[in-house]
Amino acid sequence: MSEHQDDQKQTQMKEHLLNKPLSRRDLLRMAGIGGAGLLLGAAGVSGVLEAAGAIKAPENKPNHAGNGGIVDFYGEHQAGITTPSQNFIMFAAFDLVTVSLDDVRVLFQAWTAAAAAVSRGETVQAESGNENLPPADTGEAAGLSPSRTTITFGVGASFFDSRFGLAARRPAALVDMPAFGGDELRPEWCGGDIGVQVCSDDMQVAFHAVRNLARIGRGKVVLRWTQEGFQRTGAADPAGSTPRNLLGFKDGTGNPDVTDNRLMNEVVWAQPEDGTDWMAGGSYMAVRRIRMRIEVWDRSTLADQEQTFGRHRSSGAPLGSANEFDPIDLNAKDDTGKALIPVRSHVALAHGDGSVRILRRSYSYSSGMDNKTGQLDAGLLFICFNRDSRKQFIPLQQKLGQNDALNEYIVHNGSALFACFPGVRQGGYIGETLF
Amino acid sequence: MSEHQDDQKQTQMKEHLLNKPLSRRDLLRMAGIGGAGLLLGAAGVSGVLEAAGAIKAPENKPNHAGNGGIVDFYGEHQAGITTPSQNFIMFAAFDLVTVSLDDVRVLFQAWTAAAAAVSRGETVQAESGNENLPPADTGEAAGLSPSRTTITFGVGASFFDSRFGLAARRPAALVDMPAFGGDELRPEWCGGDIGVQVCSDDMQVAFHAVRNLARIGRGKVVLRWTQEGFQRTGAADPAGSTPRNLLGFKDGTGNPDVTDNRLMNEVVWAQPEDGTDWMAGGSYMAVRRIRMRIEVWDRSTLADQEQTFGRHRSSGAPLGSANEFDPIDLNAKDDTGKALIPVRSHVALAHGDGSVRILRRSYSYSSGMDNKTGQLDAGLLFICFNRDSRKQFIPLQQKLGQNDALNEYIVHNGSALFACFPGVRQGGYIGETLF
Repeated sequence: MSEHQDDQKQTQMKEHLLNKPLSRRDLLRMAGIGGAGLLLGAAGVSGVLEAAGAIKAPENKPNHAGNGGIVDFYGEHQAGITTPSQNFIMFAAFDLVTVSLDDVRVLFQAWTAAAAAVSRGETVQAESGNENLPPADTGEAAGLSPSRTTITFGVGASFFDSRFGLAARRPAALVDMPAFGGDELRPEWCGGDIGVQVCSDDMQVAFHAVRNLARIGRGKVVLRWTQEGFQRTGAADPAGSTPRNLLGFKDGTGNPDVTDNRLMNEVVWAQPEDGTDWMAGGSYMAVRRIRMRIEVWDRSTLADQEQTFGRHRSSGAPLGSANEFDPIDLNAKDDTGKALIPVRSHVALAHGDGSVRILRRSYSYSSGMDNKTGQLDAGLLFICFNRDSRKQFIPLQQKLGQNDALNEYIVHNGSALFACFPGVRQGGYIGETLF
Repeated sequence: MSEHQDDQKQTQMKEHLLNKPLSRRDLLRMAGIGGAGLLLGAAGVSGVLEAAGAIKAPENKPNHAGNGGIVDFYGEHQAGITTPSQNFIMFAAFDLVTVSLDDVRVLFQAWTAAAAAVSRGETVQAESGNENLPPADTGEAAGLSPSRTTITFGVGASFFDSRFGLAARRPAALVDMPAFGGDELRPEWCGGDIGVQVCSDDMQVAFHAVRNLARIGRGKVVLRWTQEGFQRTGAADPAGSTPRNLLGFKDGTGNPDVTDNRLMNEVVWAQPEDGTDWMAGGSYMAVRRIRMRIEVWDRSTLADQEQTFGRHRSSGAPLGSANEFDPIDLNAKDDTGKALIPVRSHVALAHGDGSVRILRRSYSYSSGMDNKTGQLDAGLLFICFNRDSRKQFIPLQQKLGQNDALNEYIVHNGSALFACFPGVRQGGYIGETLF
């Protein structure tokens, strides 16, 4: 497993170095290093200036630079699951207000077209050119690059109630989430007939996507809840480190290698033999809004914090180890025979014997203040994908809810589980295998 | 005035082209254009690879690339006012819970040191190295670049009440904000003894700053309200256009030229002759949380939207003109004698005769949903700086509140006014001129 991690990290590092933004100022400075530096040939000047945006690129060239870029909406699996994390998320849960399955199908077809267009950096629909109609696209993403935007769709357990006659097709794995220790769930951040995860390297592009999906769905769906989130941007982190959560610790170190197809089939993708044919190639997305008790955490000692996580804050290494990706040895003891990694620490419980794995894809959130307490409403929008939550996320969270030392500093106030459809091929639409 | 605008836009464009991120992939692709492209001399290779992050830069080199960078905290004026807008904001209003002016002075000294450190991409305080103490810095910005972070401090009218004996030093310009047409103010987004505008190209860095200021101030201040905001990132907008607000229109086209010192002294910076000696070189910051009725706007026609703003949505040009920066001619008529720019349009009222100007520095916000209505709680965190709000922001907003056609689509639910101190010299501290 540590080999998987190493491979994954190397792949991520390579990807990172290739995609890292470099300012035009850097380029021009480099060009000025001197005679021994960069020499621009006659034909090279226009290439450089074009790439630097100083002269106009030919028409129809993709209009993006830096960490812009297109992640294909279509494919065997939905994008936004094994896609390397973007910088921002806007998660949206919708409830259906139609009771017509035909309406839902038409909506999903329209959403498919819109999501594919957004992923290419296009308007969600073509403009009519008639100024006496509302614009087809709300316009705030005009001129912005695709920004690696992905839109991932799933349906919740309530989608399979009596309204659409689909009760018999509800996947056994799409259970009602059980109560967990530490839950203080608030209805305004729970559930939803449909869950949509929009991730993008640009927050405005992500907002634009959710807003236009809501608009396209008017009369068929209403928003149930939304949550924005962020990670550090790539530009702010030249070293390409594992992002830190708002408790100051690295988050995602132990994630499985998304480039290992065998492992992804084992951990993430529902399989034909799992009993729900229409979900083969899909994945189950657990969403948890986890408020952090920032002010309490900030008064605890570094030793407490590290014992709580089971890792060193600065390096991210397991306690007693030197490097972030060192293996987690729960049997390691100090000179006095005490476990180096406390048994109730977050990493000890989350890792366990290493047999239960999930693909985490979380974002930090900051949503102003809790006016009742005067404390920051900030924390983690935890999202994970797994093949069968009954065997992965749920038992893991039950263990954490009961024993995790971190529970002193967090509270789960939002929760939802969605069955995310398999990928869509060109000409198809989301949910097609279900209908 | 249109000359000012042209100069400013040219300056901004130059700045933009120089700062625009260019991916390492772009660079390596350019390097491969062929013999006529880039020729790397022997000494040039390491320079390019170093700049591209592919090899390690020497120790002690500033650890930032792309749109990272340091904006000096110290200077004649506070940073974050005429500084070109960063991508993100976290605004925070604090109330003092101490009644000791000495406490406030000590707090402002500690905040000064922390803010200067954050601007340099350093931890807010040096770590003690004692793991049995809470960490001196909360850690979530570890490894992140300075990201052009600015922290701008001001005090509200309530700072000059009876608690600190400063009533006589309250600036006449720091009035209680009058009621405006269209206000539906909510106490949770209004006022504050102290206002802090943190802007950064990285949201995590901005959050880190506010959180650590709150932490440093524990026992002396409590948070009163906060609001996160964003613009499109530089990476997503290769053309460097004027950012669009969430109504899809360009916002900021008419801003005065921040590089014109004479104009800034006229529009932004309080002057010695204005009657409040300690504010000379400072500025008044008006903050308005403006919720947009997104769903209503999205049902209006393009023609309605353009008549409401007085500009074309796509180009940003004044109605009847072709280009964004074309002058605003309120006397222009169409063939039938009708004003091309409606008199109640936003641009007509905001521009007026061009004599009243403010420096706008707004951000979009998306804060989940309004649970009462099921609609998006999204809009504009309007911030402007001006020399004297009594002569600039307030009369402008009175005019807009009474007549702006845009009022059908927006509601002001937060409001505050702060006197932002003059700049701090090395060794000084914020508010020093007042104490």
